[in-house]
Amino acid sequence: MSAVIANSPSVPLYHQLAESVQQLIEGGTLRPGHRVPSVRRMALQREVSISTVIQAYTVLEDRGLIEARPQSGYYVRARLNPVAPEPRMARPMAQPSAVGVSDLAAEIVSYSGYPDYLPLGAACPHHSLFPTKKLARLLGAAGRDDPTLLGQYSMNGTHLPLSREIARRYLQAGAPLDHDELVITIGCTEALNLALRAVAKPGDTVAIETPSYFGILQTMQALGLKVLEIPTDPREGLCLDSLRNALETCSVAALIVTPTFHNPLGSCMSDARKAALYHLLGEFDLPAIEDDIYGDLHWGERRPKPLKAWDTEGRVLLCSSFSKTLAPSLRVGWCAPGRYRERVQRLKFTNTMATPIVLQKTVADFLRNGGYDHHLRGIRRAYRDQVQRFSTAIVQSFPLGTRLSRPQGGFVLWLELDPAIDTMKIHGDALRAHINIAPGRLFSVRERYHNCLRLNCGIPWDESIARALRDIGSLCARQLK
Amino acid sequence: MSAVIANSPSVPLYHQLAESVQQLIEGGTLRPGHRVPSVRRMALQREVSISTVIQAYTVLEDRGLIEARPQSGYYVRARLNPVAPEPRMARPMAQPSAVGVSDLAAEIVSYSGYPDYLPLGAACPHHSLFPTKKLARLLGAAGRDDPTLLGQYSMNGTHLPLSREIARRYLQAGAPLDHDELVITIGCTEALNLALRAVAKPGDTVAIETPSYFGILQTMQALGLKVLEIPTDPREGLCLDSLRNALETCSVAALIVTPTFHNPLGSCMSDARKAALYHLLGEFDLPAIEDDIYGDLHWGERRPKPLKAWDTEGRVLLCSSFSKTLAPSLRVGWCAPGRYRERVQRLKFTNTMATPIVLQKTVADFLRNGGYDHHLRGIRRAYRDQVQRFSTAIVQSFPLGTRLSRPQGGFVLWLELDPAIDTMKIHGDALRAHINIAPGRLFSVRERYHNCLRLNCGIPWDESIARALRDIGSLCARQLK
Repeated sequence: MSAVIANSPSVPLYHQLAESVQQLIEGGTLRPGHRVPSVRRMALQREVSISTVIQAYTVLEDRGLIEARPQSGYYVRARLNPVAPEPRMARPMAQPSAVGVSDLAAEIVSYSGYPDYLPLGAACPHHSLFPTKKLARLLGAAGRDDPTLLGQYSMNGTHLPLSREIARRYLQAGAPLDHDELVITIGCTEALNLALRAVAKPGDTVAIETPSYFGILQTMQALGLKVLEIPTDPREGLCLDSLRNALETCSVAALIVTPTFHNPLGSCMSDARKAALYHLLGEFDLPAIEDDIYGDLHWGERRPKPLKAWDTEGRVLLCSSFSKTLAPSLRVGWCAPGRYRERVQRLKFTNTMATPIVLQKTVADFLRNGGYDHHLRGIRRAYRDQVQRFSTAIVQSFPLGTRLSRPQGGFVLWLELDPAIDTMKIHGDALRAHINIAPGRLFSVRERYHNCLRLNCGIPWDESIARALRDIGSLCARQLK
Repeated sequence: MSAVIANSPSVPLYHQLAESVQQLIEGGTLRPGHRVPSVRRMALQREVSISTVIQAYTVLEDRGLIEARPQSGYYVRARLNPVAPEPRMARPMAQPSAVGVSDLAAEIVSYSGYPDYLPLGAACPHHSLFPTKKLARLLGAAGRDDPTLLGQYSMNGTHLPLSREIARRYLQAGAPLDHDELVITIGCTEALNLALRAVAKPGDTVAIETPSYFGILQTMQALGLKVLEIPTDPREGLCLDSLRNALETCSVAALIVTPTFHNPLGSCMSDARKAALYHLLGEFDLPAIEDDIYGDLHWGERRPKPLKAWDTEGRVLLCSSFSKTLAPSLRVGWCAPGRYRERVQRLKFTNTMATPIVLQKTVADFLRNGGYDHHLRGIRRAYRDQVQRFSTAIVQSFPLGTRLSRPQGGFVLWLELDPAIDTMKIHGDALRAHINIAPGRLFSVRERYHNCLRLNCGIPWDESIARALRDIGSLCARQLK
């Protein structure tokens, strides 16, 4: 084993050690739940310093391979079964297309509201994961304490304590912004709409990752925008070389990107790649709309910095909401539009005038006194565990050759099945069995991903999910016969 | 006097009597606050039956000229002083223009939230007129009874009891519609946006009354639509001949119209004119977006039928909300889009996804058990009285030659001043005195109405309003020197 280390003199020692332990884990020598050799023992065994081992273990922890248990040492984490390879990056032609996705998207979201359908379709966590009782109490109190909140508009449509809390959280995430920059919207959906309308007019081309969240594609269709799909790596995120090529050959009005825990891939761009992306934006004087809705749902220690953290010139329009972390039905979102602030503010006024103040106050009160960070830690753990249970079950239930994403945050999984499988048909069959899934076709404006599907793992694991995954696996296997 | 009656044998006797008494009122013989002769005395005096007098007085009451006081008899109502003539109808050229109104509109709305500015600008009633305490209680109960309402989307984004209540009310108003037709929106603003986007694409021309609510003009600007302004009579509403001319000479994608208590004019189209308008729509195969937000705020006995009542072919997209009747900040509105339902539903999904269910439920609960009709009767009376007090004060405080609208519902007044007066300047001067008004220029996409202004009479009368009106009157007089 020490040979591996000696072979690569240009790579730091701790990194080589981490790689070597990772091989032990992936090869099955160290299995989930096993204790990793103690720091002292490993140092002796590999003839390296204590601090090198600590650095190596930190890397492995960041990669989600091991976890520290207080007073006990490091253990191999329950994790994605390595026999399922990851999905491959698409290779789209660099040619803008008119958007053409169907009403299937709305159907899938609305099925998530039917209690007798298993909601694996829409990316919406189960309500039991949200602090709905506490929110309901705060909502009641907000109205009771100041009923006039219901009866009048507020200045500029913004509840100041809310925008201050949001700005404070971005400061912690490494992206300082002035609370005055924020426009409070009806969920992230309105934020994305306003941002798109602020930077592009009908007929313009907007670049976007592929695959992409179908809601954005539908919004672009509704706004008369053309879509230029940029290949996106399931682990690393948006392919910067492809983006550069596209910008050199096409006239592109803006980029829309989810650099942190992409939906559906789960990919997360590293800080270095985010910095490089921002540099590229400057080079082509391109505005970027950043969808950061999954940013707080990291499974690792640290919240990745949003692209906005690099934004010294106001060219990033950050969009997000509390729909994945607190309560989807409150519909409280925001946009930090940089230099496009006035445009976005004006569009907000013409689009929906204001966001209900009583809901803004409810969220602000929760952020200030409701234990939001404690709550976030809880759902991050829940999402991570649920995704892992889904992953394990998928490996057991789906045909050999199924590829599976390995997200580092959020709560969705992306599956790439045998090319002979048509997931639109699987979707239809599954619906008849009262299971709602999101077929891959939704996630592109071209005839793509017919053999892919996205699963919402935002619902607590139980036997009905295990059964449903077996059923979907069988439906897939049947198509291969 | 009896001669008047004898002269017109084809007109019913009670009607002739009513006309004759109206002349006494308008001529100043019977003045505001005076007791009208008792029914018995009038019957003796005019040699007609008791029931004829009762019928005549009922007509006069409908016309808002007299009012019954319990145990006391009929009195001449405080009312618009007939020395202020009504504003004149604009005569625009039938030529579409790109919209070019400023951010002044948003400024005026946001000033209405500043407690130290007298809010005569935005058409927003004072919060004390809304049942905010009862709504706050219902809001608290809605969350408490079912906290999951906050944590999940509902099927199709609609709270069924709400759409059923809204449909029931339209049935009573003579416009039966299926509750399934309704799309619940973020206020009337989103409803108008979705309706416009459903029937027109950027670059298209949409016909609209002039003057028109500035919010609609700004929405049209934001959507890249061209505006064709159609002259509108301050009493009768949209000029149908002008509309016909316009449709014959221009390519028009849609009409947007407020047939019932127009903002800012207060005009109301008669049933006959609404029927004729609907016929015209059919002739030119034109969709119409009906803004019915003031429909429930009639001062007379009956709620006028919306244009939608004639809509047998699904070409009327009815838009409204509870912002003028119940609570502006709840942002609960709706669209009944006729044959464009699917398009509007899809646009709703891409624009804001859903309207907060807990707010929909709060409104539905109020409609079912909160005494909504009782509340409506109260605010109708309040709005009418406030408009009358404003009118009286304006006649006393403003320069001779000031023309004043005579609305039959709603709570705004439209003033046409001497052409030498620039109300943009008045607006600036008034703001410095902490009074917010809406200058006429806002209400057109052309350089029009520079000498007009709109006043919000939705706030309970007090001495500060009297003082403010005297101040504005003086500012006007000063410009004439």
